[in-house]
Amino acid sequence: MDDKETGRVEAFSDGVFAVAITLLVLNIRGLPDPQKVLSDSDLLKNILLPQLPTFLAFITSFATIGVMWMNHHRLFTHIKRVDTNLFVLNLLLLLVIVFIPFPTALLASYIIHPENHYAALLYSATNIMLAVSFYLLWSYASHDNRLLDEKSDKKSVDAITNQYRYGPLFYVITFILSIIYVPASVGAALILAVFFALPGRRAD
Amino acid sequence: MDDKETGRVEAFSDGVFAVAITLLVLNIRGLPDPQKVLSDSDLLKNILLPQLPTFLAFITSFATIGVMWMNHHRLFTHIKRVDTNLFVLNLLLLLVIVFIPFPTALLASYIIHPENHYAALLYSATNIMLAVSFYLLWSYASHDNRLLDEKSDKKSVDAITNQYRYGPLFYVITFILSIIYVPASVGAALILAVFFALPGRRAD
Amino acid sequence: MDDKETGRVEAFSDGVFAVAITLLVLNIRGLPDPQKVLSDSDLLKNILLPQLPTFLAFITSFATIGVMWMNHHRLFTHIKRVDTNLFVLNLLLLLVIVFIPFPTALLASYIIHPENHYAALLYSATNIMLAVSFYLLWSYASHDNRLLDEKSDKKSVDAITNQYRYGPLFYVITFILSIIYVPASVGAALILAVFFALPGRRAD
Amino acid sequence: MDDKETGRVEAFSDGVFAVAITLLVLNIRGLPDPQKVLSDSDLLKNILLPQLPTFLAFITSFATIGVMWMNHHRLFTHIKRVDTNLFVLNLLLLLVIVFIPFPTALLASYIIHPENHYAALLYSATNIMLAVSFYLLWSYASHDNRLLDEKSDKKSVDAITNQYRYGPLFYVITFILSIIYVPASVGAALILAVFFALPGRRAD
Repeated sequence: MDDKETGRVEAFSDGVFAVAITLLVLNIRGLPDPQKVLSDSDLLKNILLPQLPTFLAFITSFATIGVMWMNHHRLFTHIKRVDTNLFVLNLLLLLVIVFIPFPTALLASYIIHPENHYAALLYSATNIMLAVSFYLLWSYASHDNRLLDEKSDKKSVDAITNQYRYGPLFYVITFILSIIYVPASVGAALILAVFFALPGRRAD
Repeated sequence: MDDKETGRVEAFSDGVFAVAITLLVLNIRGLPDPQKVLSDSDLLKNILLPQLPTFLAFITSFATIGVMWMNHHRLFTHIKRVDTNLFVLNLLLLLVIVFIPFPTALLASYIIHPENHYAALLYSATNIMLAVSFYLLWSYASHDNRLLDEKSDKKSVDAITNQYRYGPLFYVITFILSIIYVPASVGAALILAVFFALPGRRAD
Repeated sequence: MDDKETGRVEAFSDGVFAVAITLLVLNIRGLPDPQKVLSDSDLLKNILLPQLPTFLAFITSFATIGVMWMNHHRLFTHIKRVDTNLFVLNLLLLLVIVFIPFPTALLASYIIHPENHYAALLYSATNIMLAVSFYLLWSYASHDNRLLDEKSDKKSVDAITNQYRYGPLFYVITFILSIIYVPASVGAALILAVFFALPGRRAD
Repeated sequence: MDDKETGRVEAFSDGVFAVAITLLVLNIRGLPDPQKVLSDSDLLKNILLPQLPTFLAFITSFATIGVMWMNHHRLFTHIKRVDTNLFVLNLLLLLVIVFIPFPTALLASYIIHPENHYAALLYSATNIMLAVSFYLLWSYASHDNRLLDEKSDKKSVDAITNQYRYGPLFYVITFILSIIYVPASVGAALILAVFFALPGRRAD
């Protein structure tokens, strides 16, 4: 019963992640009017090159949502029971996931204009919300092993707890960096993405 | 066999819920033209602030569909058999779920103009249809335990029955409120959403 | 092994059905510009009433894809093995499913102009393709019980075979009707949809 | 445990494939304004015929993504364990899958203007990336049977290895052909798609 319940939460979440990651391609627009054929150089100059920031945003959002799926997956290898609170916290996390493409696309448009800060601020704020949602979901599930598999390896669980505890703080730092110097904030966000992609180091 | 059948109905429904909840992000448009870079204050004034009703509608629709998924999930912890009628009633419910973003976005545009009633009327009417679909699905499945798990806890089943019986009536009241005073109707809808998010009280 | 294989074909198909049925809502556009608030009567006259054909197309496409999902589901309660040919025939069927919203929306725009025949012709042609795809999938799988569950009830299998054998022919008749008199063709298509929604009569 | 892990990777991938293949229909636009009804001949001339390249791109992308799903499915009948590297390689593959509709639609617009090479170049480049992603995924999983089912038939595994080893090379040839003569490159790509649709020949 519990297993089936958890399975359905995972299936629903997998669906949301899969749709969100695939919808990203809709942001790549600008296909030329099929009636008007452009020469090779016009196609490059008017269609393909102006899309570069869009391609960049596409790949970044794809990588972000992909890494978040890996994290979600990792948490649910330990979570074996669900309750109404977990549903709500999981929905909160998915809300942020679904929202990611918007600030990412905005940032991609502004990446070459680092004198403008608001796009980077919104991007960092979204990352903070993401880190907070993950932290809430995991703290709730792992507190006193509330919803975890009883056979879970305690060291793996602690490794995740350690990794997530400081996530929000790190992203607050990138938020402050976006006020001071945008490129540093973007660089820090990329480093954090790689850090969360790797499994937490087991403290042994 | 029965279990696999029910599983496929759940998987299809989960897919529809997951896509519907993720498509909501498509309503957040208004990304600035990547060719034209705006200053921070213009970005705020022309792009981000005018989107506030859209963000509001995004979060409300997300919460509504998320709560409805939780309800659907709760019903299917008891439903263990399926037949053609249940397929049709489930499709009717999904039809309303998929439609939700439209009246929600309309309402969000009109929320600051409570002298206009039609957006709130359409929103309340959609909620009535949703409550009626849930009521029909559950009555059909639970009547004489037609499609329920024989081991289902009778008190949990009755708690759901009690909670759903008056759903349509409550939403008819919000519909009438939309004719009289729009903000009261919206407030009542939010209270009802929280009420349906909570598991029904077991009558013991 | 076989079971898992079949399961993945079903999961992929369920995904396509779920996305296709949910994407239908994207055809409901015409949300008013959030900056310009319309009076109740303008909202009705300029936004809601002109959408009526769109709502009609939304509900018709939703019902069509829903019924086709029920049919697909019914076939796969008997199909227990898969091979490369079945993959290809299933993809062909899904191709038609995914295409359905286009001719349906076109037909909805033209339903009040029965002197124009092309929209109804395209709609009927799509229905023929759908009936042919179902016929091919089922004939391939059921020929000499090639991919069916060995424990399948022979009478249920024969009932499906009988129901599907004449499907393409019936839709050819609606195609011819679209040349002669459009409303008759649309009516016939609706009757056929109900006919395919019902399980085939067992010949006993 | 391992099985469940692999199952969730498959479910997520199936979701992405299903959404990507269904989103293709969004590229078919050009529905006439519901307010303006066209005569049959105008509908044909202004709406349906100009869509022919779009229909062609729709069917080609659908077939490509469908064949790639079949390939992915075939690999995962052998892959029975997952690790972080496999997640990343699988995400890379899905990134290319999700991107496919863009170059395909571009190519479809340019197919009747073979003097323009860039659309065909982008299409061939995407195919190279696809072949490389499949090659990387499979080499990583099958090297020393790292993640394969221990009971996998060695001959089937070797057949896949042989088929994938030369994939990238073949697509480099179509890339060079796109520089010389576009139609030859498109024809070669179609032949390769059929080649990858068929199961690899077992070397016995």
